[in-house]
Formats: sequence, C-alpha cells, structure tokens
Amino acid sequence: MPLPAHVFNPPFNIVRCSHAVLGVRDLAASRTFYEDIIGLHVEDADADHVFLRGLEELQHHSLVLKRQNIASCKRLGFKVASEDDLDKAAALFAQQGLAHEFVTAPYQGRTLHVTDPFGYKLEYYFKMERRERLLQKYALYKGVQPQRMDHFNVFVPELQKTIEYYAALGYRMTEYSEEEPEDGGRIAAAWMHRKGNVHDFAFTNGHGPRLHHFAYWAPTPLSVIHLCDVMASTGYLKNIERGPGRHGISNAFFLYVRDPDGHRLEIYSCDYQTMDPDHPPLRWSLRDPQRQTLWGAPAPRSWFEEGSLFEDTTVRDPAFVANVIIAH
Amino acid sequence: MPLPAHVFNPPFNIVRCSHAVLGVRDLAASRTFYEDIIGLHVEDADADHVFLRGLEELQHHSLVLKRQNIASCKRLGFKVASEDDLDKAAALFAQQGLAHEFVTAPYQGRTLHVTDPFGYKLEYYFKMERRERLLQKYALYKGVQPQRMDHFNVFVPELQKTIEYYAALGYRMTEYSEEEPEDGGRIAAAWMHRKGNVHDFAFTNGHGPRLHHFAYWAPTPLSVIHLCDVMASTGYLKNIERGPGRHGISNAFFLYVRDPDGHRLEIYSCDYQTMDPDHPPLRWSLRDPQRQTLWGAPAPRSWFEEGSLFEDTTVRDPAFVANVIIAH
Amino acid sequence: MPLPAHVFNPPFNIVRCSHAVLGVRDLAASRTFYEDIIGLHVEDADADHVFLRGLEELQHHSLVLKRQNIASCKRLGFKVASEDDLDKAAALFAQQGLAHEFVTAPYQGRTLHVTDPFGYKLEYYFKMERRERLLQKYALYKGVQPQRMDHFNVFVPELQKTIEYYAALGYRMTEYSEEEPEDGGRIAAAWMHRKGNVHDFAFTNGHGPRLHHFAYWAPTPLSVIHLCDVMASTGYLKNIERGPGRHGISNAFFLYVRDPDGHRLEIYSCDYQTMDPDHPPLRWSLRDPQRQTLWGAPAPRSWFEEGSLFEDTTVRDPAFVANVIIAH
Amino acid sequence: MPLPAHVFNPPFNIVRCSHAVLGVRDLAASRTFYEDIIGLHVEDADADHVFLRGLEELQHHSLVLKRQNIASCKRLGFKVASEDDLDKAAALFAQQGLAHEFVTAPYQGRTLHVTDPFGYKLEYYFKMERRERLLQKYALYKGVQPQRMDHFNVFVPELQKTIEYYAALGYRMTEYSEEEPEDGGRIAAAWMHRKGNVHDFAFTNGHGPRLHHFAYWAPTPLSVIHLCDVMASTGYLKNIERGPGRHGISNAFFLYVRDPDGHRLEIYSCDYQTMDPDHPPLRWSLRDPQRQTLWGAPAPRSWFEEGSLFEDTTVRDPAFVANVIIAH
Repeated sequence: MPLPAHVFNPPFNIVRCSHAVLGVRDLAASRTFYEDIIGLHVEDADADHVFLRGLEELQHHSLVLKRQNIASCKRLGFKVASEDDLDKAAALFAQQGLAHEFVTAPYQGRTLHVTDPFGYKLEYYFKMERRERLLQKYALYKGVQPQRMDHFNVFVPELQKTIEYYAALGYRMTEYSEEEPEDGGRIAAAWMHRKGNVHDFAFTNGHGPRLHHFAYWAPTPLSVIHLCDVMASTGYLKNIERGPGRHGISNAFFLYVRDPDGHRLEIYSCDYQTMDPDHPPLRWSLRDPQRQTLWGAPAPRSWFEEGSLFEDTTVRDPAFVANVIIAH
Repeated sequence: MPLPAHVFNPPFNIVRCSHAVLGVRDLAASRTFYEDIIGLHVEDADADHVFLRGLEELQHHSLVLKRQNIASCKRLGFKVASEDDLDKAAALFAQQGLAHEFVTAPYQGRTLHVTDPFGYKLEYYFKMERRERLLQKYALYKGVQPQRMDHFNVFVPELQKTIEYYAALGYRMTEYSEEEPEDGGRIAAAWMHRKGNVHDFAFTNGHGPRLHHFAYWAPTPLSVIHLCDVMASTGYLKNIERGPGRHGISNAFFLYVRDPDGHRLEIYSCDYQTMDPDHPPLRWSLRDPQRQTLWGAPAPRSWFEEGSLFEDTTVRDPAFVANVIIAH
Repeated sequence: MPLPAHVFNPPFNIVRCSHAVLGVRDLAASRTFYEDIIGLHVEDADADHVFLRGLEELQHHSLVLKRQNIASCKRLGFKVASEDDLDKAAALFAQQGLAHEFVTAPYQGRTLHVTDPFGYKLEYYFKMERRERLLQKYALYKGVQPQRMDHFNVFVPELQKTIEYYAALGYRMTEYSEEEPEDGGRIAAAWMHRKGNVHDFAFTNGHGPRLHHFAYWAPTPLSVIHLCDVMASTGYLKNIERGPGRHGISNAFFLYVRDPDGHRLEIYSCDYQTMDPDHPPLRWSLRDPQRQTLWGAPAPRSWFEEGSLFEDTTVRDPAFVANVIIAH
Repeated sequence: MPLPAHVFNPPFNIVRCSHAVLGVRDLAASRTFYEDIIGLHVEDADADHVFLRGLEELQHHSLVLKRQNIASCKRLGFKVASEDDLDKAAALFAQQGLAHEFVTAPYQGRTLHVTDPFGYKLEYYFKMERRERLLQKYALYKGVQPQRMDHFNVFVPELQKTIEYYAALGYRMTEYSEEEPEDGGRIAAAWMHRKGNVHDFAFTNGHGPRLHHFAYWAPTPLSVIHLCDVMASTGYLKNIERGPGRHGISNAFFLYVRDPDGHRLEIYSCDYQTMDPDHPPLRWSLRDPQRQTLWGAPAPRSWFEEGSLFEDTTVRDPAFVANVIIAH
C-alpha cells in the first residue's frame, strides 16, 4: 500500500485512547463482570452508570457502563493535549462538515462529541477528574490486574480512506496486513498509534462501523492465565472467546473475552515502543497465518464476524472481500 | 466404578516412572528437537543413541532416543526400591506367565524387561548411574526448562482389567473419568500414581496398547509459553498439537507437542500432592467437558486418535466406545 | 558426618508433616494476617480457634490458631499411614519412656500427643475430616496463594542425636551442612523428609527446642513477590523478615515473614523430588555462604536468633557453637 | 519545590534516551558479561568496540563498549525527532556557550556531541542504522531478556538548576523526592521523561557529574530472578549489588548489577505511562523509606556512593547534604 505520510503537525493533538462508553442491558451483571472477574476498580456508580478504571490510571474512568435497553458502543473517548486542541478539533470538524457538539460528560471537562466521516461515534476531552493511582494499593489487585486502557479496534468498511483520514489527524501506522499483489494487494488491517506503543486505534476491513474490541493492558501472561482459571470456575467459561495466545502482529500475548452483552474485551500484554518518528511500519502478508496467531488454536468464526454496534448507525459492507482466507 | 482396593503391601515396590526409550528415524533431528527446543540435557550420545535428562534429575537419563528404521515406543522404564524388588518382580511375572528377562541396559544396573498382560513393554531397574543435579546450573537453562519426567499415559483396550492389574501392583488412583449411569457407567480413563503426585501411569480407553504421551514437569506456565514462542519461531509450529491450557483433571497447565517422529510429549505443570494413603479418587463425569479442558480451545482430533506404537505389538480395539463425545 | 542408615521398615509409618498449632495472643489480628494477607482459607472458627488450610489441601486444617495469653508453638502435627501406625507409635513411645497420650482434637480422629526425647511437642493422627479441594476455586485465590503445608524447621540443641532419632523413625536426609574438618567437622543442620521432597522436618543447631519456622508451598516466585507488595502496602512491612531470595540448600525461592506474634512463616517454592530410596544426601560446607543465600541480601540477625517457644519447655544451649560464621 | 513549568514547545525535540557509550578496560570480559549473562544481542564488534542492543530495538545499538585503559562513561545518547532538531540543538548550545561539535559516529547519522552546563557528556542524533527486531526471534532469548534501553540516572551536584535546565528542554517531571520543610525542603532527586513513561533521565543529588546507572527494561520479575540465579551460579555473585526489590518511586521491580568495570546497570520492570501533558508529578518525602524500597533489604553503601566518571571531568560536591538519611 502507499503508506500515508507521517503528520508531525497534526491539526489538533490527540494524546491517546482514553475510555469506552458502553450501553449494557443488565447493569448489575455487567458491573459484576468487570469488577469481580476482570478486576477493574469501580470509582463511582449510580442507578444508571458504573465508572471503572485500571490500576495505574489517574483518570476517573476508562470504562463507562450505561444501563439501556439495547447493548451498544456509545462512544470511544480520546484525550487531547489541551483545551485549545478541543477548539481546533471543533473547527476542523466544522470544516469537514461532521456532526459535532460540546456536551457535558460526568467527571470530564469540556467534551466534544463527533461522528467521524465513517460513522464512528467518538468523544474528545482534555480534563478529567483525577483519582489516586492504585498501582501500589496491592491489596486491591484482583482478576487480571488490568493496568490501563490500551487501544480500540474497529471493523471498517472503507479501510484505505479511514487510514488516510486518521493519518491526517496525526496517527502513525506501526503494523499492517495486506494481500499479496496477485491477490489484489489491498490493505486488510492497520494498527495506528498516538501514544508511542503499537496502537491506540486499529482498523480492520469488515462490516462497519462496528467496535471489534477495546483492550486493557495486563502486566504478565500469568495474570491472563489466572483470568482464564477464574472465568472457567465462576460460570464465565463461554465468555472466553479466543486465546490465550500470541499474535504475530504486535507480539501481543492476548486473551479475548466477551462481556454479558457480548462486547469484546482484549487482555493485552507484551508489545513494544514505537515513539520514534521514523519508526517503520511492519508489513504482514495476508497469506501468513502467523500474523494472527504466532502459535495456538485458530480464532473462532465469531471473532471474525461479531462486533458491537454504534447507536443509530447503519452498518455497511466492506469495500472488498479479501481474496485469501484471513483466519488462521 | 468399583474402586480397586488400595494395596499397601505390593508384591514389589515401584518407586516411580523413570524414563522412556523411543525409536526414532532421524537421530540428529530428534536430538535437536529435545536438546535445543525442549531444553533437555544431553548426558551421553553415540552413533545410535542419545541419552537425555531434566534439570533436577540425578539419574543418567530419563529419555533414550535410539536410531532405527521405524518410529516406536520401545520401553517405558520404572524405578523400583531395591535389587530385591527386581527379583520379586521377576518371580511375580513368572507366576503370571509373562515374557520377561534380565537384560543389560547402558548406564543402568540389572534391568528387567517385561511385556505386561496387555502388551505394554516395560522395564524395571533399581540402579542407574548418577550425574550431578543441574538445578543450580542456571546458565544451562533453556527451552521449557524441563525439570523431571513426570508420567506416562497410554491408550488401553481393556481399561477395567488394566486398572485392576496396576492397582494390584500398588498403584493408587487419584482421578478418573466415567460415563454417567445412563450412558453405560463405564470408566473411561484413570490416573494412577506411586510417587505421591497425580500420576506415574495413566490409562485411557482406546486402541492399544499404544503410548499416548510421556510428560516432563516444567516450573511455571511462563516457561510453557516461552516454549510455544520458541517453537513457533524456529519452524516447529506444526509440532504444537494442543494448548497451552488447563486440564480440569489434575489441574495441569499443559502443552502437547509432537516430536519429529510424532511421539507426543506433554509439558506439565501445577498439579498437587497425593501421598496420603486415604487420598480419595476424584471422579469426573464424561459429560463434563471441563475435565478435559477447564478452559481453552478443544483438543484436535489427532490428540484423541494418534499415539506411538510399541514394537511387534498388535493394536486391539477398545472394549467399548463411549456413549458420549469425549472431546470438549 | 556418619550418615544415618536409611530405615526402610520404620517402626511406624509417618506420611508427612501436616499442621501446626500455634498459640496467639490476638486471635482477630492473627486471623486477618493469615486469611487476608497470606491468603489461607478459614475453614472453621470459634471464639478461641481459627482453622485454616491451603488451596490444594483436602484436610480440614493445616494451621490452627488458638487464643491464649502467651504466644507459643503448641504442637507440630504429622499424618501417619493408618490407625495401626498410631498404636505402633504409642507402643514405641512407651518403650522409649516418652510422655504421650491419646487426646481428642477437633476435626481429627484419634490423635496421639507426644513430647519427643528432645522436648518437641508433636501430634500424630491418621484421620482428619476432609473438605473439598479449593485448587480449582480460582476466585478464592488471594495473597500468596498458599497451596500446602510443606515442612517444619526447628532449632536443636543436640543435633547429632536428634538426626539419629528421626532417621530411626524413617526420615531420610536430603541435604545437610557441616563444618570443614579443620573447623571441627560437626554437622550444623539437616533436612529430612518422609513425603518425597526436600523436607518434612529440618533441624538446625541452636538454642532449643524452638520452632524456627513452618512453611507453605506457593506456586511461583511471582506470587511471592505479590505478597511482598501486599504486605508493604497494608502495614505489614516490618513483618517481612528476609527475602525474597534463593537458598542454595533445597533450591528454594524463599520469603520469611513474621506473624503478629512473631511466629515465622516461610513461603517456599522451587524444590525437587527425593523419593528414591537411594537419593544421596547433598553436603554443604558451612564455609560456603551460597548454601544460605545463593544470591540476595544476607539474613538479618533475628533470623538466626529468634524462634517460637514450645509451652512449658526449657530451652537448652546448643551442644556447640560453630567455628565459622554461619550467616552469609 | 517550585515545579518547572511544562514546556510544550521545546527548543528542539528529544524523543527519548537511546544508548550509552562506556569505556571498558577488558573488552572481552565486558562482552561476555553483557552478551552471555545479561543477554544483550551483539550486533557488531571490532577489535576496539562491541555494539549491543535489546530484543525489541530496531536501532543498531543501545550500548557501545569501547576498549580503553580507563573505565568511564563516555557518552549518553539521545534520539531527536528529525535532522532539523539537531541543527536547532546546535544553535541553542552555541547560544548557551556550550562546547559542542558534529562528529562521525559509527552506524549513526549526523551526531552532535555536547557537554551540558553541568558537565554531562551527551550526544544527540536522529538517524541510526536499523536492524530487524528480535522480539519474535525467541530462540535468541537469554539472560534477563533485555528488551530496550529505558533510562539514565546521574549524580548531580546542582540539582535544582539541572532540573530547570532539562525542563526547559522539554523534559517533564513524573516523580521527585524532597526534604520535609523542617529539614530544609530541598529537592533531592527527580525523574524526568520525554517518551511517555516514568523517565528517560533521572537526577539525584550527589557528587557529580557521574553516571549512577543506565537501565534496560525486562518483561517480568521472573526474568530478573532468573538473572540472579544465572549470575550467582556463573561467578558473578559479587556483581549483584542490590535487589531484586520494589522501588516505591516508579513502582519499578528492580535489580542493580555491576559490570566488570563497576558500571552499574539496572534491570527495570513494572512502571507506568505518563504521556498526558497534565500528568502530575508525584512527591515522595525524604523521610519515607518506602520511596527507595517498598519492601526488601536496604541498599548497600556502594549504591549511594559509587558511580561512573565521565572522562576529563571534575567531580564537584553536591550543593547540599540532605538533613535526613536518604537510605532505607
């Protein structure tokens, strides 16, 4: 693929992925899942919301659960570098003709909602209330000891354009997969970052816009194995969808689990740093099954097909269907 | 099932499983696999043999590879408690009408070969040359850091009788799986021990006599994950057959790999102690898929069907085919 | 030292070390320490007692805390192989002129109390109520995830005689330390076992009889490090006495902590199997500092000097003071 | 302390700490230490140099060993974001009256040498030859599996001024220690970063300029423990200076080792992300011993006193001696 040029003076400065806002149908069941099984810390809760965060996060929440009649991905949240960056973002979105508005979001400062050109519902903010870091409150450690929100991964119908759009916002590509020339040579997925590791936002060819998963970083593979043991012995066996295993891409030691509404959470470990401006993107051939699974059982069909819907959003077919089987 | 009575005064005293003798077709390829990838220590080698041991083993070898034209399991070796026990064993086998003979085996003292009533080719010995323990030679650690031979697992056509025979030799059952009464109520597998952990010798209903696997104990799941990473990046991806995962049975964190001849090796971790004479056997229903896999992908068909042949031995059909699917 | 002959027909059959009974002054504080910090499971409790066990233990308790005005080691408990063995033991103790009696102990069958020739208060039993194994109740895992009682270690004033006495009861020596000949050539400590790993009962030259420590086995060094983190962040920093580190002896990855009364608990990992009757004892020179600490900071003075008293028992000076410094 | 204002438009853009250049007296001995024991990958070597890198590093080297008669820290290297940044840096250094020059450095593009106002010999570059990432060459893993250079830590005689200088270059403070007001209220150490984790460059009050240590990041505490075991069993016991343990500051699981010339290397694990522009600095009181050691043995005197000299550089006394003991 023609790689997008690196953008060093982005129109506004996105620091990193920050939080996901999910619509859930049974708030108590979802809270139990994320708090008792996964081990996130409940920072606040009311009748309709639960706000959770990981062990190293100073920010009030990196996951918001909202009770509603239908499960959905409501928003993917990103932190920007200053209040000015919010205004720059709003100006850009106006220029791009994108629906956007400043809203009030609990525990956050000025928050800019936008639906991007492809239908993803995002929110940008600079300020969020801070809470004491829990990293050295070791007595609170439980579940998989989730340390921080790491990234979002979405199904994308128009992959090439989406990558170009986010490259223009300053995202840099670290890894990507593409067809061999004789198969069509089309890019099939891209991992893009702002914060200096493998990704903040990843894009996969497919029916979209839909959320494939959000990911929390965990300290070691042993905590991931412990989560499998806990889930298997507390009635959540069927919520383990895939793994543990090793992705060739990003070198992640991964586990994919589904929450009570089917939202997919990745537990993610073992990636690497990428903050060099000249960090070269790593190409994987779609014919190389080890990009998906360096070792381990193949992914189930659900992993390739299922995802969380954004609200009031029509899902479109992907621009192409890959000419090789993309599963392992 | 009617549990076999514990035998506290066995006719001769078997201490533990000790070593496997395998026929391999390409001795150099097999040595590379076990030495460089698995991480066993080559203690001695000649043109036709390689002798290997684990990091904590004082005994000269726990795995013997013999070059020959056909792959096979030649012998499963067990240590007895004294020279007298060898004579008691020989007397018993004579009484039972079993083919047996004292042979000379390299690096071993008096060695008694026997073919048991079901066709398994075994050898018993008391003395083996000792070598310095490598447990604190940390610079030698590599691969999965295999520490000791833990157990053998065989396919058995006449399961009930085989269990009774080995119970009479002093083996005690720690876990077993069986059909529900409405499915037939037949025992499907048994884990039996002499040394005080879950098993030295396990028996599974199936076409036999065949060796299902031998197992080395590894210190932590992290060393197992490292082995997966090493195998996947050195051309041995297809030799990873199943796992890593957790068995319900024995609580083992397991990985099954196949050597260049297809012999199956389990890497085994996380079991428990069983030396109490009144340790009760743990029953698993054949309808409970978590006995096989507490969590993780189902076992591939090969794992249920393939095994190593003993030489000059006819494989028999099992006494029954279970009325429930035994795979996960 | 002249090694004691192995005893294969012991006068009665001791299976393994089983449980410690400790006198504690503040029962609530001790319960909090062992349940919430160490992670043992409270199986039963009343106004004056707390009964705890490890994750793999089927037996009702491996630690009993009894409220009393003075801290003490009340009893060290061992399991024997049958009821007959209790009667054989009683007969032997009568012959040896040792104070002994059958007592009623909660949750245990017939229980034989004895004060051994050197003043150690022990109890032997065969039957104890069983509870379901918690090994696969992963949601209960906490603290250091203690899996089973592993061994006792005592200060001994008459070391040579004590070793000989226990060798005559069937204990086999796995490791020992002694002075170089020019320093006196005396044995300074011995590790002796019944169950097939490095020790059930260890004896160290020193002011005694006193309990140096009891030890729970933990699955990996990572759980030990987590315990350090938990203790350091919950007000128990000063209860960490020594480690984590590696003993040369037994290859243990160790941590020594003190409970609220000062009783010393070792968290123990990484030893090896020793069930072979011809397993040779490993000698360490008292001049070799790595026997104590393969690496890591030297032990504090308290570790060499402090221990728990048995009740109503006079402490005697050791038979000798070693001619070399035994600390690292 | 008056915290330095964050600088969002630094005069030139430093990406991260990159590499250390050390003078060593016995090149073969140093290579053995870093390659065979620590586990760095030797990328190139000639009669006078060895170039090494970690497992995830694309850059040709993160450690350069140069044979010379005297041990020294020759240079600390930092990567900048572009060639332009080098010219901006040179202009700034000219304006500041600092000795600086563009030099040719092997495998690097244009390289700017500078001695900073306090005497630290640094080098800046943008381009370095790239080599294939070794992260998935798992068969090459050995020693502590060092993944990347993480940071430098230096002794500083004029701490307040040094912090201000580097804050003006765009470094942001993540943690710092200071005296209580009644002890003088002076800052004693600061951890400052560019790349988004706890530090690239740390400054400690003391005789300087001297290098206290450079640090490689390792994936888990288990790899650190393995390094201790390897060093203790290969003749490098005395090269283990401190740890393993946990710093309160940065939450690092640490080990400090000394190379054959006494250069100090930290193995570093378990920190957290800090890329938010509003990430608040964390204060530690100099009276809080857990800032140094959350748990574990106190640091030896050598750790507080010894460091590597920069060449041809006079060491100055610190501006003050803290009024409290800074060791644990």
